[in-house]
Amino acid sequence: MNNAFLVRTLGSAKFNAPARNNFVEDEGVLVRATVPANQQYDDSSPLMEKAGPRRKLFFNPRRTHAAIVSCGGLCPGINDVIRGITMVLWHRYGVRQILGLRYGYEGLAPSFNHEPFELTPSCIEDIHKDGGTILGTSRGPQDVGQMVNYLEQNGINILFTIGGDGTQRGAMAITDEIEKRGLEIAVVGIPKTIDNDIMYTQRSFGFETAVAMSEVPITCAHREATGVRDGVGLVKLMGRESGFVAAHATIASGDVNLLLVPEVPFQIENVLSLLENRLPTKHHAMIVVAEGAGQDLAPGDGTDASGNKKLGDIGLFLKQAILEHFKTPNTRAQVRYIDPSYSIRSAPANASDSCFCFQLAEKAVHAAMAGRTRMVTGLWNGSFVHVPIEKAVEQRNRINPLGSLWHSVLDNTGQNF
Amino acid sequence: MNNAFLVRTLGSAKFNAPARNNFVEDEGVLVRATVPANQQYDDSSPLMEKAGPRRKLFFNPRRTHAAIVSCGGLCPGINDVIRGITMVLWHRYGVRQILGLRYGYEGLAPSFNHEPFELTPSCIEDIHKDGGTILGTSRGPQDVGQMVNYLEQNGINILFTIGGDGTQRGAMAITDEIEKRGLEIAVVGIPKTIDNDIMYTQRSFGFETAVAMSEVPITCAHREATGVRDGVGLVKLMGRESGFVAAHATIASGDVNLLLVPEVPFQIENVLSLLENRLPTKHHAMIVVAEGAGQDLAPGDGTDASGNKKLGDIGLFLKQAILEHFKTPNTRAQVRYIDPSYSIRSAPANASDSCFCFQLAEKAVHAAMAGRTRMVTGLWNGSFVHVPIEKAVEQRNRINPLGSLWHSVLDNTGQNF
Amino acid sequence: MNNAFLVRTLGSAKFNAPARNNFVEDEGVLVRATVPANQQYDDSSPLMEKAGPRRKLFFNPRRTHAAIVSCGGLCPGINDVIRGITMVLWHRYGVRQILGLRYGYEGLAPSFNHEPFELTPSCIEDIHKDGGTILGTSRGPQDVGQMVNYLEQNGINILFTIGGDGTQRGAMAITDEIEKRGLEIAVVGIPKTIDNDIMYTQRSFGFETAVAMSEVPITCAHREATGVRDGVGLVKLMGRESGFVAAHATIASGDVNLLLVPEVPFQIENVLSLLENRLPTKHHAMIVVAEGAGQDLAPGDGTDASGNKKLGDIGLFLKQAILEHFKTPNTRAQVRYIDPSYSIRSAPANASDSCFCFQLAEKAVHAAMAGRTRMVTGLWNGSFVHVPIEKAVEQRNRINPLGSLWHSVLDNTGQNF
Amino acid sequence: MNNAFLVRTLGSAKFNAPARNNFVEDEGVLVRATVPANQQYDDSSPLMEKAGPRRKLFFNPRRTHAAIVSCGGLCPGINDVIRGITMVLWHRYGVRQILGLRYGYEGLAPSFNHEPFELTPSCIEDIHKDGGTILGTSRGPQDVGQMVNYLEQNGINILFTIGGDGTQRGAMAITDEIEKRGLEIAVVGIPKTIDNDIMYTQRSFGFETAVAMSEVPITCAHREATGVRDGVGLVKLMGRESGFVAAHATIASGDVNLLLVPEVPFQIENVLSLLENRLPTKHHAMIVVAEGAGQDLAPGDGTDASGNKKLGDIGLFLKQAILEHFKTPNTRAQVRYIDPSYSIRSAPANASDSCFCFQLAEKAVHAAMAGRTRMVTGLWNGSFVHVPIEKAVEQRNRINPLGSLWHSVLDNTGQNF
Repeated sequence: MNNAFLVRTLGSAKFNAPARNNFVEDEGVLVRATVPANQQYDDSSPLMEKAGPRRKLFFNPRRTHAAIVSCGGLCPGINDVIRGITMVLWHRYGVRQILGLRYGYEGLAPSFNHEPFELTPSCIEDIHKDGGTILGTSRGPQDVGQMVNYLEQNGINILFTIGGDGTQRGAMAITDEIEKRGLEIAVVGIPKTIDNDIMYTQRSFGFETAVAMSEVPITCAHREATGVRDGVGLVKLMGRESGFVAAHATIASGDVNLLLVPEVPFQIENVLSLLENRLPTKHHAMIVVAEGAGQDLAPGDGTDASGNKKLGDIGLFLKQAILEHFKTPNTRAQVRYIDPSYSIRSAPANASDSCFCFQLAEKAVHAAMAGRTRMVTGLWNGSFVHVPIEKAVEQRNRINPLGSLWHSVLDNTGQNF
Repeated sequence: MNNAFLVRTLGSAKFNAPARNNFVEDEGVLVRATVPANQQYDDSSPLMEKAGPRRKLFFNPRRTHAAIVSCGGLCPGINDVIRGITMVLWHRYGVRQILGLRYGYEGLAPSFNHEPFELTPSCIEDIHKDGGTILGTSRGPQDVGQMVNYLEQNGINILFTIGGDGTQRGAMAITDEIEKRGLEIAVVGIPKTIDNDIMYTQRSFGFETAVAMSEVPITCAHREATGVRDGVGLVKLMGRESGFVAAHATIASGDVNLLLVPEVPFQIENVLSLLENRLPTKHHAMIVVAEGAGQDLAPGDGTDASGNKKLGDIGLFLKQAILEHFKTPNTRAQVRYIDPSYSIRSAPANASDSCFCFQLAEKAVHAAMAGRTRMVTGLWNGSFVHVPIEKAVEQRNRINPLGSLWHSVLDNTGQNF
Repeated sequence: MNNAFLVRTLGSAKFNAPARNNFVEDEGVLVRATVPANQQYDDSSPLMEKAGPRRKLFFNPRRTHAAIVSCGGLCPGINDVIRGITMVLWHRYGVRQILGLRYGYEGLAPSFNHEPFELTPSCIEDIHKDGGTILGTSRGPQDVGQMVNYLEQNGINILFTIGGDGTQRGAMAITDEIEKRGLEIAVVGIPKTIDNDIMYTQRSFGFETAVAMSEVPITCAHREATGVRDGVGLVKLMGRESGFVAAHATIASGDVNLLLVPEVPFQIENVLSLLENRLPTKHHAMIVVAEGAGQDLAPGDGTDASGNKKLGDIGLFLKQAILEHFKTPNTRAQVRYIDPSYSIRSAPANASDSCFCFQLAEKAVHAAMAGRTRMVTGLWNGSFVHVPIEKAVEQRNRINPLGSLWHSVLDNTGQNF
Repeated sequence: MNNAFLVRTLGSAKFNAPARNNFVEDEGVLVRATVPANQQYDDSSPLMEKAGPRRKLFFNPRRTHAAIVSCGGLCPGINDVIRGITMVLWHRYGVRQILGLRYGYEGLAPSFNHEPFELTPSCIEDIHKDGGTILGTSRGPQDVGQMVNYLEQNGINILFTIGGDGTQRGAMAITDEIEKRGLEIAVVGIPKTIDNDIMYTQRSFGFETAVAMSEVPITCAHREATGVRDGVGLVKLMGRESGFVAAHATIASGDVNLLLVPEVPFQIENVLSLLENRLPTKHHAMIVVAEGAGQDLAPGDGTDASGNKKLGDIGLFLKQAILEHFKTPNTRAQVRYIDPSYSIRSAPANASDSCFCFQLAEKAVHAAMAGRTRMVTGLWNGSFVHVPIEKAVEQRNRINPLGSLWHSVLDNTGQNF
């Protein structure tokens, strides 16, 4: 097996796992499942390690002490993941010491001195029915040495990190420090990115809920646009570098006439020209824009606490450009701009995401108990897999403007750019 | 390329497709993406044909006459598929003659004489926001010769069939008759099975909506069960031979203590014993059962109009068995049995399914315009593909009791059988 | 003031209420606000006592010990009422001893020995976001003497009873026993009837949620009916003696062609004749029936644990009568019968009901603290009022077949009987 | 009967209404149903005319030509009202000429030359299931003489005006001009105000939906606030001069710690001081503000097309004031500000509003057919009534800071100002 996707293990697993009807052992999942025309499949293609319960555990469940941390912005399903980890640790493995660290990596930093929660099945029983995170969250890193001190001083054997690529890079740094100190602490992540832009997972948790929630403002803006003469509905959705949420929401909606995403550059003239063609006969139009689109037109300034570049408000830019262009009495457009902001990311996970979150959490527990570390759980070519953190964060998953999804957008909206 | 999944084509494609930024040509998708431990990937593994727009068309769009039929029970997303086919035919290819046949295969049978709809973008603009099917549906086959007569007499070039495996078997018979008569009519299906039990598509449309809608009765039954002493919530979900809806809904819910599916046989004693252990301390329990589970215990009788075996009411059987067992004053259980029946299958597609339906419909149009026939569209290992009907219906997709999904059920419910 | 609606008071109120910007004192609300043509308003018309905070309290808040009980079937909003009572007692009055009795009147009966909850703001903070009742419930009465013993032995000063007319009759019996023993215990009820059939409150809590939830099965059945040839959708809604839920849901839906309620007798021939007229041209029809309608046609047998007469299944009767009547190939009807049963009553309260529940709970607390007893809170002619239990249960509120609501049903469905 | 609420009639009604089981004749509804302590009810109190079908009609239904116009901002239920008017005119009275005028009063102005819709039951069958208005809307008045010309030239007998107080003042001007010209045209309004601020109707359509929809951003902001250290959720809701939506949404939510409405002036210091007390122990807080609150602190500038004063953004003002005040590392607050803007007013009516809209529409049709004019329909003390326009617009309905609703807010939030 090609080793590019090899997942690190703390050492030999010697404890017996609780009995069950089957275990997963050394099965591989092909990284690439498509074959270009007239070629044979290249059998040196890398394989990912399939996730699932292992027959042998690295940690003795009765003595295992786990901790969970959630970092970065809210995303539907964080509570599902926290609950899933806790439930599987407790009921399947009998782990009885599970700490919920407060407010992201702050919970591992001595200066904040946040008191952690003791997580038990009864206290987390219904948390998945609500959005947000019961642990709280924060943005940005903390001192790696201090965080490993915390793990060491509190006797924590496994740290589960729920967070985006900044968080997982932080988790890598923590594993490096753990290794340097020769500690036996597993760090297993559940990648959180509402934009679905993480590599090697075909879907990130919260994404489908985000798509579903995005229908609401699109439908509202469309009603507003059709409710007045020459109304232009305009909705800004999440998508800093990848327009997946906006693309799926657009296709699902069927009301959208133009989608703008970061992956496909555009000129403002194209937008105005589309409206010039459409408004005189249809008297309304509907535009969706991913927040990271057109940053050459509406550049932002500075970075936020997570170190992300602050984006310019492309929605506001478009609104003003449209109003400015259609301002004579005969061409006057009325723009209805909705920026649903927090309303999407704080939603509770829908059923599909709840199910997916549980599976990601469960697989993370199985991996950690077996001594896997420096990895995140993912779904790839139909199987749950272990992904080394460095592969997950090596680049971003983005829409291919020549691929199937963008074809569907073009077929759906009728736009030609 | 191994030919097992070769899709039939009507003949050489000679018309130019409308210009776009890319086309799909002869790309393959591996049928199997997992590799057993310590083995090399077998490069003779079959490939599926990747779906998408082709550069050359078999049909001249300006003269193409298409028809759409929906058969069998309702399923979320049928209207999305009808709309998607119509929109892509009309806007992308310029097809102007699109018939909506009424009430399933009855619409092709002369004795019923149902007047078809002319489908245009304006009349189907918003149909995807509602459940059901605007075309109406019926169960069961009609005479194949008469149906092909209808296609011939009405000059129909493409027939899109939205339906389950009975419908697609019917579509195969229609293609055989078409071929026998030497006609150039494409038949392309979009497989409809709310149970997600069709082969070679990792997900069938309507499935995720069905899972989401199934949460409602589970939550209700759970509230009823916890609202009284020794309450037992019991919900029967769809799943004649495959328990996918019930399994996903169970994992998503987190409230379920026992799931029963057709793939995993059980004894009634196991169910009663689980309740005996649980009720004295927890005072409530929650059971989900797929309709096809336990048919050895509650056998049905006869077949329905679609030729499906009528199922016994396993929900009622369980209710009565539980009431009978826990009938003394000290052990009295109160069973709250919900059979959501029509409420799930008549729901409108959620955003995820709406997006998926559009993509399946779009791919079906691309395939048909390029002359593909005797196939259905599917999603496999992350790519949309063409699946020959005979492969799609050769067996049913079922839960593997030793696989990842059932592991997740066991980890979620805590059940041990 | 006419005394018919005089509310009993335990004695003179001598403690000062917490300061606020206003109090309600001795204001009256007219029982009847309409005046027949050409008549003067009769100034001897009875008045109800307006609800709200009183300047003087009967109970010393620092020493008050309250208890809450919920009885009978589930209804949206019970948790809102429990939460509202607890919040207002705790935050507004400073009461620190609030017991949540388990499983209805069983919680006051020594033989069951149910351990009550201590209710505090933190433990009930979010309960209104879920349906059901955190206290649990049961049907039927318990021994009055034993229940008053329980109140006396536990030093309870106020008992809040959430329940229907059986529960409130029980509460009357408790107040009689309290009075006989010369105790100073207030009993204040919040009337629970999803059917909206209690007198002297223009709306009962949970009713609007029930109407909203009833839309779901009506919409489903309508989609099923329009999805097949000659489909007949049939939905049975709650309404033992009063068809308010069914009437409001019918008017809101706009899809219903015939509504049957207990207040308006009908012949089965009328139903069949309506279908005979409609099906040949429209090919579908939609019927809603309140469970208590047509009991002369489908009589029930016996009584349930609450002492309510068991109803015959009028939905099933209609289904069979329609199938029997339209059974020839030319007239065959397909009936889609939905009995949403538990799905409606276990729903969480919608915003309108949550707001209303809080207000009813708050008014109940104000009343009880001021020493009112043997009463329930209600809403009448736009004001919250105190209603003596004997007035609330003296008869049932029913639809007037000559009045405004039934006019709206006739105008909405087009039915003529 | 005191004549203050006398509704104008075009003349003697001489046509027989379609047969039905009852008619409403000259019944009165007391304007005031409460009696101050120790007083008798004053029998000279004014009465409103009860709404409902009349035995005699002014217009001959077979020759009646009606028109409907919707004006001002969107509000849940406009389509319900349009549908209700059309259905009752068509099915109950047999009126066959019903015009839907486009884009508000523009539809009556010659310069715009908007083509009206012909409304029939089949084209409006499902419009109530969607938000917005199928007719379109616009703000601001048009020339009264030209609008009456339009009515005259098109032979319109009845104009139904769906709109707020500006629209109804316009309708009054139209009736004045009609009367001056001696025409027999009825003008009947259905008052539209999402703020519930119109006099003499205890509830305006769309209000309950607006309250329900307001829960969404409150819940989101609350999750965001609790998800970070010292998070402050802040939601701005509608309510230019009256805080009813915000007050009901606050009570329903249970998550709000401070509500600010136009009726209750406040100092910014009160807000900051409340946060200073709360954040150090609770670490989060939730504020709701009605858009018209605190306009002395954040004054707006100019007027909009409807002639309404433009409001300052009190939400933004509060956000900045809070951030400014809590800016040291030890006190840093994180404000999550949501302005749901269009998302609420474009929602479809919920069941309660759909039912109410139908009843208002139905009553408007009955009134117009009987020759009533210069009136709007309303609900008062439990009965549907006719309200002369001049009474409906004479002042605004506002929250009484000493009354029952504000008591409930104080009891619910715990705020003391």
